[in-house]
Amino acid sequence: MKTLQDHIDKLNKLNFKEMYENDFFLTWEKTDDELEAVFTLADALRFMRQNNISTKVFESGLGISLFRDNSTRTRFSFASACNLLGLEVQDLDEGKSQIAHGETVRETANMISFMADVIGIRDDMYIGKGNAYMHQVSDSVKEGYEDGILEQRPTLVNLQCDIDHPTQCMADMLHIIHEFGGVENLKSKKLAMTWAYSPSYGKPLSVPQGVIGLMTRFGMEVVLAHPEGYEVMPEVEEVAKKNAEKTGGSFKRTNSMEEAFKDADIVYPKSWAPFAAMEERTDLYGKGDFAGIDKLEKELLAQNAQHKDWACTEDLMKTTKDGKALYLHCLPADITGLSCESGEVDASVFDRYRTPLYKEASFKPYIIAAMIMLSKFDDPAKVLKKLEERDQPRKFK
Amino acid sequence: MKTLQDHIDKLNKLNFKEMYENDFFLTWEKTDDELEAVFTLADALRFMRQNNISTKVFESGLGISLFRDNSTRTRFSFASACNLLGLEVQDLDEGKSQIAHGETVRETANMISFMADVIGIRDDMYIGKGNAYMHQVSDSVKEGYEDGILEQRPTLVNLQCDIDHPTQCMADMLHIIHEFGGVENLKSKKLAMTWAYSPSYGKPLSVPQGVIGLMTRFGMEVVLAHPEGYEVMPEVEEVAKKNAEKTGGSFKRTNSMEEAFKDADIVYPKSWAPFAAMEERTDLYGKGDFAGIDKLEKELLAQNAQHKDWACTEDLMKTTKDGKALYLHCLPADITGLSCESGEVDASVFDRYRTPLYKEASFKPYIIAAMIMLSKFDDPAKVLKKLEERDQPRKFK
Amino acid sequence: MKTLQDHIDKLNKLNFKEMYENDFFLTWEKTDDELEAVFTLADALRFMRQNNISTKVFESGLGISLFRDNSTRTRFSFASACNLLGLEVQDLDEGKSQIAHGETVRETANMISFMADVIGIRDDMYIGKGNAYMHQVSDSVKEGYEDGILEQRPTLVNLQCDIDHPTQCMADMLHIIHEFGGVENLKSKKLAMTWAYSPSYGKPLSVPQGVIGLMTRFGMEVVLAHPEGYEVMPEVEEVAKKNAEKTGGSFKRTNSMEEAFKDADIVYPKSWAPFAAMEERTDLYGKGDFAGIDKLEKELLAQNAQHKDWACTEDLMKTTKDGKALYLHCLPADITGLSCESGEVDASVFDRYRTPLYKEASFKPYIIAAMIMLSKFDDPAKVLKKLEERDQPRKFK
Repeated sequence: MKTLQDHIDKLNKLNFKEMYENDFFLTWEKTDDELEAVFTLADALRFMRQNNISTKVFESGLGISLFRDNSTRTRFSFASACNLLGLEVQDLDEGKSQIAHGETVRETANMISFMADVIGIRDDMYIGKGNAYMHQVSDSVKEGYEDGILEQRPTLVNLQCDIDHPTQCMADMLHIIHEFGGVENLKSKKLAMTWAYSPSYGKPLSVPQGVIGLMTRFGMEVVLAHPEGYEVMPEVEEVAKKNAEKTGGSFKRTNSMEEAFKDADIVYPKSWAPFAAMEERTDLYGKGDFAGIDKLEKELLAQNAQHKDWACTEDLMKTTKDGKALYLHCLPADITGLSCESGEVDASVFDRYRTPLYKEASFKPYIIAAMIMLSKFDDPAKVLKKLEERDQPRKFK
Repeated sequence: MKTLQDHIDKLNKLNFKEMYENDFFLTWEKTDDELEAVFTLADALRFMRQNNISTKVFESGLGISLFRDNSTRTRFSFASACNLLGLEVQDLDEGKSQIAHGETVRETANMISFMADVIGIRDDMYIGKGNAYMHQVSDSVKEGYEDGILEQRPTLVNLQCDIDHPTQCMADMLHIIHEFGGVENLKSKKLAMTWAYSPSYGKPLSVPQGVIGLMTRFGMEVVLAHPEGYEVMPEVEEVAKKNAEKTGGSFKRTNSMEEAFKDADIVYPKSWAPFAAMEERTDLYGKGDFAGIDKLEKELLAQNAQHKDWACTEDLMKTTKDGKALYLHCLPADITGLSCESGEVDASVFDRYRTPLYKEASFKPYIIAAMIMLSKFDDPAKVLKKLEERDQPRKFK
Repeated sequence: MKTLQDHIDKLNKLNFKEMYENDFFLTWEKTDDELEAVFTLADALRFMRQNNISTKVFESGLGISLFRDNSTRTRFSFASACNLLGLEVQDLDEGKSQIAHGETVRETANMISFMADVIGIRDDMYIGKGNAYMHQVSDSVKEGYEDGILEQRPTLVNLQCDIDHPTQCMADMLHIIHEFGGVENLKSKKLAMTWAYSPSYGKPLSVPQGVIGLMTRFGMEVVLAHPEGYEVMPEVEEVAKKNAEKTGGSFKRTNSMEEAFKDADIVYPKSWAPFAAMEERTDLYGKGDFAGIDKLEKELLAQNAQHKDWACTEDLMKTTKDGKALYLHCLPADITGLSCESGEVDASVFDRYRTPLYKEASFKPYIIAAMIMLSKFDDPAKVLKKLEERDQPRKFK
């Protein structure tokens, strides 16, 4: 078992200077050492919590949350991460604010950031908008800090944009690393990121994109599978290809779920909307054409319904490596016979993996807390050491 | 006057081991010692706050709040209790979450609980649903803790279900104990828990049920009065009967408000909907029959209107012991001539008891904080001792 | 540059005893020393935050926020101020509460205040209602404290009422003081508080009223300019006149924006609705006459549109002192060509002053925190000294 010193030693071997006072947008904008630092620090924070050592590093300070899309998990994960470190979450509820009255992004961003150490944003519904908005916010507060308006530069954590879902995918990856006993055991393992049928439409592409953008960095044989017409962003597939080449793994695409699942060590069947359709919806929304959006929705549901066989069934699971591939999902899943008639996965399969699925989700607060710490402290290893020496109990002893 | 040591000594005489890592659902699931521990600890926490001694026992940690019904008082009481102990409240707003998309109770419960030390739930609108839901949540997180998903087992506090309203009724009881100078002075006192007319419909039964389920444990002569057709759950009446027998008091039912009020030492006139009607509404809601719910509402309002004489008037108060019975209400009350034309109580009566009514309400945050402490610490008496020694001011000195 | 000791010394020369356990409603209810104390303490708190010294003075305690009107800035400023001091914000969301069911102001105020150290209220939409409501709340909790219901007396901070907007105007004033290098440099400076065209209607009068009610206390030549029909409350103009006489400045009114801007050192062009129209809207709202409110809105928009020339243009700015008057706005502004076709200010003017505008806004959290500290501690200078000695870092070192 690892001690805190093991984590500290590991951090001290890595170079992640660029993370200090910097944002976290896309995993492929980060170096291998930087990702490794997030994983290591996440594990360290979890270790400390399990051992009742307080990781409170702020006496005051806000973590701003801005959700432009529904969320349970990530909202709670962000709040949990902030709370772990001593930051208080203040939510920007665009319904209660004056943003409708013509405030610019730059103005809003600064007006809410006077005491903000970190800003977490989810903006994933419209192609080309979400990640762009996050950059606008980041640039605004960076400028505000440089102009002497803000006493600190709030750093951004991407809680899901139209391109990537880094907190989710890094939690998924840390889970995989733990399940397989270390990155070194991942070489040549086959990971199938596949589309799956869902009776609801318009699920963001940031999960499959995030998965292929990240998980091709560990020497695995990654396969992206989906019916024709369900392509993801070509730019992200490029990133995946290059990652795979660099690490001696591979990245392939196929239109066959069976081919992807065959002998896979890890499977991640999850629905998403076609990239082209999401772009169209963004256009229609920009024009205020809600009738058009309804019509598009019906078309997409009909299109989805042609691929009900794209489901993670018991039979399909049997074709994986020893019939025991690690089944992953970001949740909530559309479970056949439970949450819907036909869905992404058989109820018995989901049920069998419930504990590891919840385990997968449990990494997210620590991943977010690690991202925050790395952006706010230039020597987190030293901070961990001092926290260990301070030995303040999280829960009174 | 009591010192902190008095409270510590009293706690040390009680056996409440079963409360540690356990939930608080219904008062009649708790032993006399366990209830006594809640009262004692509530008083101790109040004493410490009055003397500017910080009772912060968590450096981080969340108290999840889940309100499936409107609330001002209990929402603020739960937040106040958590804040007193160092827990941060994170509200699960089912409007903002993804629960509509097919997440199971088990999944939601675990997904929000990674850093949760306690979960407070109010779910009182549908007979047979509320308390059952709370148990589902509790079982889910207990399982998650045992499966290694959660680092701690979040314990549940019932902030009102369809059966009981323990935080309210225990605050009411502690108020009674203080007003009468001790439990020993309650023997043979007459308490009238009566129905009262209200122009609004569908008020939960959990208050009258909670009152008769709890206050029959102190040797008092408890009378439950209501018009025919306004019966509460027979199971709870059974509990009340047995409690009374055990403690040498009594539990009677009558259809006469006058009979209940006559020579009473304590009166608690409050409206509620008939149990059978609440069951029917639950059915209609399950079928999505909102027209049926409207029709039922009109019937109930008409039925209520036949009993406008069931009001706590000055004349009725005169018939109590020395005309000075302690008047109780969980608030807000329907006050004749103030908030409505005809209501539960005359304005002049309500006005005369305003200070003790607010005093009654003031116990709730401390009751909740005590319930939380008893579920999170196996030796709260020792914790109090150490807090006294730590002597950290709540407000900077 | 000032040290913390400079601020402490300054505070020790002032008499602000009356602020302890007292509310902050209108700036003109406070003495010069009291306002000076707020400015000094705000600067001190900012100094400490810039130097990573924690100003946490509460281990627990709530700051209740009650917003009866939309807000981004002030909501976040209040939350930031509370967080800086260690208070947790609990928002009274009147949508989620039971207030609709007949709870009185007195009852609600006490029910939410058991652990409240401070209450921040914004209620500015209805003439004669907002400030009155705040007083009701304050009287209620003062009574609750005196009756032994509350362990502490929650003090009120006015986050904008129908009469004044003290947190905004004092932030504006502190900004002016910093920009001009000290109060002594303000003597004889000309400040133009002028109306400006806006395509939206019904903006509150509390900003122009707050400005003339406060900024006439520093020996400046204050000019209030607006088209006929846009008068503010006569009582506030009286206050402004008397202030000016007392401090050797002046207060004039004019119907010419040009006259106000000519040779001005400071300009504050901002739209507001006519006082008489706001009174009429309050009446219509009281009668539930929403058709009448719509009709009134159309009339006011038409009336506004007759004065589109009341805009802070580049040409107008050129007529100010050296063409370089300090341009102020409480934000958000209606910016011609950016947020609307015709607005309060040219985009190029607004742009040029963006940094000082954001700087102006940045004072608000510290102003609020200062108001809170002065109401909760009888010797804040001593508290600052001890915080300096405690030397707890805000952010872990």
